[in-house]
Amino acid sequence: MIDTSELPTSIPSLKLKCVAIDTYKENVAYLHRNCGLYRSEGFQALSKIEIHTANSTQPVIAVLNVVDDASITDIDELGLSEQVYEQLGIPEGSEVFINHATPPESLKSVHKKIAGEKLDYQQYLHIIQDIVNNRYSKIETAAFIVGCAETGMERDEILHLTHAMVDTGERIDWGEDLVCDKHCIGGIPGNRTTMLLVPIIAAHGMLMPKTSSRAITSPAGTADTMEVLANVDLSLRRLHEIVSQQRAFLAWGGTAKLAPADDVLISVERPLSMDSTGQMIASILSKKIAAGATHLLIDIPIGPSAKVHTHMEALKLRKLFEYVGDNMGLHLEVVITDGSQPIGRGIGPVLETQDVMKILGNEPNAPIDLKEKALQLAGRIIEFDPDVRGGQGYAVARDILESGRALTKMNAIINAQGRNNTPIQVGKLQYDICAEDTGIVKAIDNLKIASIARLAGAPMDKGAGIYLHKKVGDKVKKGEALFTIYAEFNADFTFAKNAALLDNSYQIDKL
Amino acid sequence: MIDTSELPTSIPSLKLKCVAIDTYKENVAYLHRNCGLYRSEGFQALSKIEIHTANSTQPVIAVLNVVDDASITDIDELGLSEQVYEQLGIPEGSEVFINHATPPESLKSVHKKIAGEKLDYQQYLHIIQDIVNNRYSKIETAAFIVGCAETGMERDEILHLTHAMVDTGERIDWGEDLVCDKHCIGGIPGNRTTMLLVPIIAAHGMLMPKTSSRAITSPAGTADTMEVLANVDLSLRRLHEIVSQQRAFLAWGGTAKLAPADDVLISVERPLSMDSTGQMIASILSKKIAAGATHLLIDIPIGPSAKVHTHMEALKLRKLFEYVGDNMGLHLEVVITDGSQPIGRGIGPVLETQDVMKILGNEPNAPIDLKEKALQLAGRIIEFDPDVRGGQGYAVARDILESGRALTKMNAIINAQGRNNTPIQVGKLQYDICAEDTGIVKAIDNLKIASIARLAGAPMDKGAGIYLHKKVGDKVKKGEALFTIYAEFNADFTFAKNAALLDNSYQIDKL
Repeated sequence: MIDTSELPTSIPSLKLKCVAIDTYKENVAYLHRNCGLYRSEGFQALSKIEIHTANSTQPVIAVLNVVDDASITDIDELGLSEQVYEQLGIPEGSEVFINHATPPESLKSVHKKIAGEKLDYQQYLHIIQDIVNNRYSKIETAAFIVGCAETGMERDEILHLTHAMVDTGERIDWGEDLVCDKHCIGGIPGNRTTMLLVPIIAAHGMLMPKTSSRAITSPAGTADTMEVLANVDLSLRRLHEIVSQQRAFLAWGGTAKLAPADDVLISVERPLSMDSTGQMIASILSKKIAAGATHLLIDIPIGPSAKVHTHMEALKLRKLFEYVGDNMGLHLEVVITDGSQPIGRGIGPVLETQDVMKILGNEPNAPIDLKEKALQLAGRIIEFDPDVRGGQGYAVARDILESGRALTKMNAIINAQGRNNTPIQVGKLQYDICAEDTGIVKAIDNLKIASIARLAGAPMDKGAGIYLHKKVGDKVKKGEALFTIYAEFNADFTFAKNAALLDNSYQIDKL
Repeated sequence: MIDTSELPTSIPSLKLKCVAIDTYKENVAYLHRNCGLYRSEGFQALSKIEIHTANSTQPVIAVLNVVDDASITDIDELGLSEQVYEQLGIPEGSEVFINHATPPESLKSVHKKIAGEKLDYQQYLHIIQDIVNNRYSKIETAAFIVGCAETGMERDEILHLTHAMVDTGERIDWGEDLVCDKHCIGGIPGNRTTMLLVPIIAAHGMLMPKTSSRAITSPAGTADTMEVLANVDLSLRRLHEIVSQQRAFLAWGGTAKLAPADDVLISVERPLSMDSTGQMIASILSKKIAAGATHLLIDIPIGPSAKVHTHMEALKLRKLFEYVGDNMGLHLEVVITDGSQPIGRGIGPVLETQDVMKILGNEPNAPIDLKEKALQLAGRIIEFDPDVRGGQGYAVARDILESGRALTKMNAIINAQGRNNTPIQVGKLQYDICAEDTGIVKAIDNLKIASIARLAGAPMDKGAGIYLHKKVGDKVKKGEALFTIYAEFNADFTFAKNAALLDNSYQIDKL
């Protein structure tokens, strides 16, 4: 309505200041309460403002906080939190102009979604573009997420959202027709199969450039765990070099701008504990497609304390993955696995690394369940290879592992990424949680055991976590250790111990 | 799960600091990035933390921002935004302890609501209690609002929400059985009937203690407008004194803690442009009941640019108001009125005050439409009086107004509240927006004309706004003034002029 090109001449300017506050994924601007513009324009706390510079074509949007301390933001200044300041890209003291922000046009589509309407690709694209360009406040993003939640998205809409998330970021091209990837619908502690799959698949000669996340709510992500052994923070150029030599890597995926909307959506979903099916599928598939995957194996563990509880739920999810994957041109397979208890014995970066290296080294005390699961998944991925006969993948994978070729490949990958020469040790504070009765382990609650491991300091402290001495089906005597807690810091150690003594997550049937 | 009573002894403390930032209705805490606790506990920006003091029984909850400037929050400090600091109520430098906050238990009910379930009174009560106690972040409040939006609430749920909002705040008792109030479903500029109703009703002897709001999105609220004439910021004790002398007042309702959840909900609804029927009804009725009203008249204007567009929508809304009102023990009447154009001639606090005083003074150039509407509404309220025969209210109201008794009462109320002896003038910058063609005024867009008045500075600058020379049905010659813009400041004046020259909100049919 207003000709914004006239703004710089018609309204007074402010001096730019960076306020050293990290507001994460939300743009926040600070204005002094006695700033002339604040008073006369009727800006209010939580209002959204547009920030213009003398040369800017597109304004930057931020939510307003009002300041009463001139040392934070003076009356002739506009303070910006760190991430907005970086977006603007001009030095402190520069002349800036502000204006009431009009709500993003795409918010109308969010209102339609909330009212139960179905949105098309263009509508999802505009929403995701505005989210990527920081035009949404946290509460607007929350409105979109809730509007899409539960039964709210039809499968075509999940496809549109996935498309939109891929189209608003960068996309890696590895220059080959068969690029493998895998994803596990999380929730199972210790389930570090990726670090076994990647060297097996690469030793078979297939391409598996694996970008992984750090843990958000779990005690360890693959990136956190691999970091115990090697550098995982690598440039895209370096990743291309490693792939050309080794056929694979195990790196952190945070540096490339792959499906950048996903990070913003997760920053709101996580504190809300919202994880709707549609958003989850779009999040996973958009990241994989943007990362250049052509062939994807999805692992859906089921169990009472896994993310997916029943076989029927898992089947429903499988159909949705297949629908979206097929329509995005992805070769996608889904395996449904046992998620009734943790996999392996270690929980936490160092402890999980030790499990992985024991399996690669064919050591006699290696956890058999983690090894078996990794071989099954590796077998399925190897069968993406047109030269491997259906059903033969498992045997190929086992041969690669047991011959030591997987260990050799893993060492080559570690060296290529940059070996961590001072390996991190397990936490020096250790405490055994013991059985209160003699009996048989009936169940271990994934969520509770993960929570104890996090309280102990994982994944922030690499050596913190849990080592499980007993698994489901094992006999246990009264007073025998069920698991050991490892921690680096006293406060964490106390937190984790208290939580475990209150509820150790084990269900034991008395004999 | 964790015994929080042990916290103060088991974890290190921080020194309390007030960070002079007004984060409005959201609790924000600031922690330095290099603070030992921040690193070891794995707190993240946007995490929610619990703040304990040595003596506190109930922790205060806040959302975390991470600071990189020790002058804002040092590494051994916990910074709190102004409103959290006030809630804690202990001096700077005090020892405080922080901990990861567990999500409020009531968030589970929000998830149920999002999934389409119906909630009962206890569930709404727990949600509203947590909101009032600042245990919800903005995004959690947004999730609740969106979950309740559109078709999401059954009428019993609106009743439960209203009940919960009344029960979580204070409630005024005026000590009489008949306490009148009125509310208009906003959106019609210039519609300042309340300032006419109150003196008429009080002159008739009925009790009308009127608390009003300031404008949020409109060019003037009743509190903003009354403030031109008198002090509106009065203590509850003073309001009781005025009522006992004058039977009425016209004050700002922001000081008493009436349905305090409403302010928090509105602080999120407004930037989201969400205004769901259920939330609106609960918001209006909870405020009125908490303010002590027993008899309430609701005015629903309908028109293409009013909040309610059709008669059918208005009827649907009326039934919901009646259902909730009846079940809350409120005597509630609804009138559906013409909202097709602004009421009166002035838009903005001073200009609307002038309309009101002309009508009270029975001046010949008083706006007839505002007078007529006020008399109709006053008549309906007077008929709440058991001694007035049905249908006679209008004649009683007109007699009170035309005899000058309403003006006498208004002056008495103004004097009781504290007369503003230096009356504020209309803005010194003035500009006429003129007709481009000769013809008849067919329509005036309420939203557009309100937006021009706000750009001119209303309600922040009392003298800013618009005076309408032409209304719907008037003949107008090319070049004749349709309305005059009044402003105090050059920037606002330019904004408003530009907007009006682009689209003056009038539709004129050529003759």
